[in-house]
Amino acid sequence: MMVVEPSLAQDLEQILDISREVGVFSDEEVDTVDELFQGYLSDAVKSGYNFLSCREDGKILGFACWGPTALTMGTIDLYWICTDKNAQGRGVAARLFKAVEDYARQAGRWLIVIWTSSKLEYEAARRFYLKMGCKLTTQIADFYDHGDDLCVFIRRLDADDSVNG
Amino acid sequence: MMVVEPSLAQDLEQILDISREVGVFSDEEVDTVDELFQGYLSDAVKSGYNFLSCREDGKILGFACWGPTALTMGTIDLYWICTDKNAQGRGVAARLFKAVEDYARQAGRWLIVIWTSSKLEYEAARRFYLKMGCKLTTQIADFYDHGDDLCVFIRRLDADDSVNG
Repeated sequence: MMVVEPSLAQDLEQILDISREVGVFSDEEVDTVDELFQGYLSDAVKSGYNFLSCREDGKILGFACWGPTALTMGTIDLYWICTDKNAQGRGVAARLFKAVEDYARQAGRWLIVIWTSSKLEYEAARRFYLKMGCKLTTQIADFYDHGDDLCVFIRRLDADDSVNG
Repeated sequence: MMVVEPSLAQDLEQILDISREVGVFSDEEVDTVDELFQGYLSDAVKSGYNFLSCREDGKILGFACWGPTALTMGTIDLYWICTDKNAQGRGVAARLFKAVEDYARQAGRWLIVIWTSSKLEYEAARRFYLKMGCKLTTQIADFYDHGDDLCVFIRRLDADDSVNG
């Protein structure tokens, strides 16, 4: 049975494997996942990072990383949602996204913000966020690099929920 | 004569006084200015924070804090521009803004991004950014708190410069 729950220390190796194999993370970004996971394990509140694992029979099918946005009362940043390449198409990312929504609501937050790139390899991610009811609020040209824009998606948790029922 | 140049260690007390007296910084934010200034003094490149002082006859009339945006090639964040309340109306902020543009260009960057609040006390700041040729690219409702939106201004340095020529 597929469940989503806060990540355990023992999930780290599988989470890093998933990050490496999904093909969009640079080595530097995989190191960042590792670093943020250590912060989460030592003190999730103080570090500001939370990890969720989607688990089935002891195997990790995907993970999400999110945290409250500094200096805000209502906003969380969704840093990554990532699915094992052998578990694509089974709704893992959607389960993780719903779980992030639930945890954000429990934390008294009402807005999810996602900063992502306009590059082709993130097209599936951008389509996914739209499917989850997010809105592209702005696209800032050449933010990351020439031809690599910043796309900012938002998902309000206190408005009409019908889009992703 | 009014000059803008990289801040010196001895500027800190006046910078903190300006921050306290301008009336929009909370105690927590004044502490943050202090913290970032320490980072700047110990290693501007490593800390990612740069301070500029507008100086006249040894007195600091205003300061700006900016830094390259992490994980980007072309973007800088402009964190604060702040003018001593006794030096308002003399073009201090405009000089600081132009200097930030120049330093950003020198650093090979082409985009300035400014994150600010929709609250009434920031209205003068928002008008100032528009006057400097910035564009409001998005306003995210209730980002900071209920009724306190995020306003994101951008200023491209590689496009037509006629607006604030």
